[in-house]
Amino acid sequence: MNDTATATALERVAAHRHRFNARFETYFDTLADDLGTPALSRFTPRCLELLRDLSLRGGKRLRVALLYEAARLVTTDDVPGLDEAALSVELLQTHGLIHDDIIDDAPVRRGGPSTYYAYREEFPRHEQTALGLAVLAGDLAAFLSLRVLMDADVPAEPRLAMLRVQSDAAADTVTGQILDLERDFEALPSEELLHTVTDYKTTRYSILAPLRLGLLAAGEDPAHHDGRLRRYATLVGIYEQMRDDYLDLFGDERVVGKPSGSDLRSGRRSYALRAVLAAATDDERAVVESALGDPHGTAAAVERVREIARYRGVEDKLRADMRRYAGEASAEAASWSAHWREEAVTFFARLPLWSVERTL
Amino acid sequence: MNDTATATALERVAAHRHRFNARFETYFDTLADDLGTPALSRFTPRCLELLRDLSLRGGKRLRVALLYEAARLVTTDDVPGLDEAALSVELLQTHGLIHDDIIDDAPVRRGGPSTYYAYREEFPRHEQTALGLAVLAGDLAAFLSLRVLMDADVPAEPRLAMLRVQSDAAADTVTGQILDLERDFEALPSEELLHTVTDYKTTRYSILAPLRLGLLAAGEDPAHHDGRLRRYATLVGIYEQMRDDYLDLFGDERVVGKPSGSDLRSGRRSYALRAVLAAATDDERAVVESALGDPHGTAAAVERVREIARYRGVEDKLRADMRRYAGEASAEAASWSAHWREEAVTFFARLPLWSVERTL
Repeated sequence: MNDTATATALERVAAHRHRFNARFETYFDTLADDLGTPALSRFTPRCLELLRDLSLRGGKRLRVALLYEAARLVTTDDVPGLDEAALSVELLQTHGLIHDDIIDDAPVRRGGPSTYYAYREEFPRHEQTALGLAVLAGDLAAFLSLRVLMDADVPAEPRLAMLRVQSDAAADTVTGQILDLERDFEALPSEELLHTVTDYKTTRYSILAPLRLGLLAAGEDPAHHDGRLRRYATLVGIYEQMRDDYLDLFGDERVVGKPSGSDLRSGRRSYALRAVLAAATDDERAVVESALGDPHGTAAAVERVREIARYRGVEDKLRADMRRYAGEASAEAASWSAHWREEAVTFFARLPLWSVERTL
Repeated sequence: MNDTATATALERVAAHRHRFNARFETYFDTLADDLGTPALSRFTPRCLELLRDLSLRGGKRLRVALLYEAARLVTTDDVPGLDEAALSVELLQTHGLIHDDIIDDAPVRRGGPSTYYAYREEFPRHEQTALGLAVLAGDLAAFLSLRVLMDADVPAEPRLAMLRVQSDAAADTVTGQILDLERDFEALPSEELLHTVTDYKTTRYSILAPLRLGLLAAGEDPAHHDGRLRRYATLVGIYEQMRDDYLDLFGDERVVGKPSGSDLRSGRRSYALRAVLAAATDDERAVVESALGDPHGTAAAVERVREIARYRGVEDKLRADMRRYAGEASAEAASWSAHWREEAVTFFARLPLWSVERTL
């Protein structure tokens, strides 16, 4: 593996993040004026403030990097509309996080309070008002996500195509969230079901849509490259989800930034927990199932499941699977040289290897 | 008042409703295929079924009538894109109702179970799952509302303008819902605040947006008529809201189809209750305030508030206010003859009078 190229991929992700975060702040600076919110309201500015807080507490902004680099597959020129597409992608993410935290009753998000719990804190004796305001904050982020794209400085036809990409991705994500809830009603979901959840819940809006939006803004029709974009997105989606699931069970709490075993406690049949259930003996499975979905599960209970997982080779299997999916994603991107600019192709080929190696 | 013209307005609303309801059914017939929902999911088809149930249990479809008649201000030709605009308007309504019933914890909607309570019934021991699925059903309806408009057979530029109208209306409605929650934290909200709530929560998406969409589909730029459209929409929005609020306190339960006093029990400072609070003596106000927001308030408690309202002239005042706003709306529409087709102008001029007279 070429260390210089990997470093460059890393630096490029950081540069995109840095530039985008400044742009995202500017967006929120003018949002209240742009929306024409009524001056007599105190609750509306507070809602915008919470949207801003959560949005700017963003992580590595991988979606944004994928979007900008997709445009660089075609050109190094400045591409109008990319900034609005990036805002749209991250606002849709904000929408998803807010509603996800209502669905999961989750107090913490991105190292701060979830929007739902921020409101619960502010309305301790009005739980229903807090729930309502959180639902509405998520709704607003959804509409803003599509609205910002309508302002993109892109000709009408490709702008409509971009809107179509985002609204399809948004609808698919809802399906993915529904599947995610459904999955946990199966004692042992198939790996195929997990792949389908990942595809709908994450891959389509987080990887495939940014790639398509970047190409559309740069004047390229992604329909001509549908097979290769989908192959790459699917593989990246799977190893990224496997990595999250792996870290949730095996990761170092101090590095991951949240307590281990949250999937176990919430009863989520993740890639890791599904693999443990599939590989365990009857006795071991009884141990895992007694901890699955117990919100008060102790660190010792998590450790017992972790030991079973290690003993049954699940940790090694997950690491091997992640490497394999990342390797296939990298190979897929490397084959794009025939169509696109080498420098950006290299970025897409390096990204999966970097992403997996820094974890394992 | 001209009875024949009123009858015609009524018949036209019914004809639009009838035609649209058939179109709405067809939309849901092909929705699962169109969305490409995964075959292995049982929860996703159930979600689409609940969206369909609620959507087809629609009431008088006034929004749809306004939309079709707005196009008839310009032409009697068939106007491509009107059906998709109507679907968009009613799907946005479905979205709003589903989330509204979560916010209000409301079991009943349109004479059947709310989507939230349908899910609660299906998941009696998984309240959090029921909440999650209801949030997601509402989200899906929101995205479908914008998505269906992207398929309208309208040139790209006006299609984008239609999308803009709908996404602005959707964002405004969220602001309106937030204001609505905020309003009930004020002991005596000003009438100005109530007008603002009505404007954001109802008028913009329910009246103004359908007018704009109908004109856009018919090839007319609504920006050239912004003042007159806003004046009409604002007046119609106010008397329609006043009518709902009036019926909630003074209406005959058997005619209205829901128990009287629901605003009182939920603590909603409606036009009617605000007027009672403003007109009452200190002693009377204490009676009203003790019933406001008491979910277990008896029929006798509602009757006591009703008596105070009648004694203080609030019933008469509301009836006079409604007649006045409807009359002004009618006069506004009548002034449109200089710009638009007489037959449709007459419809818009008659509608407010019909709407108020059939109530009072």
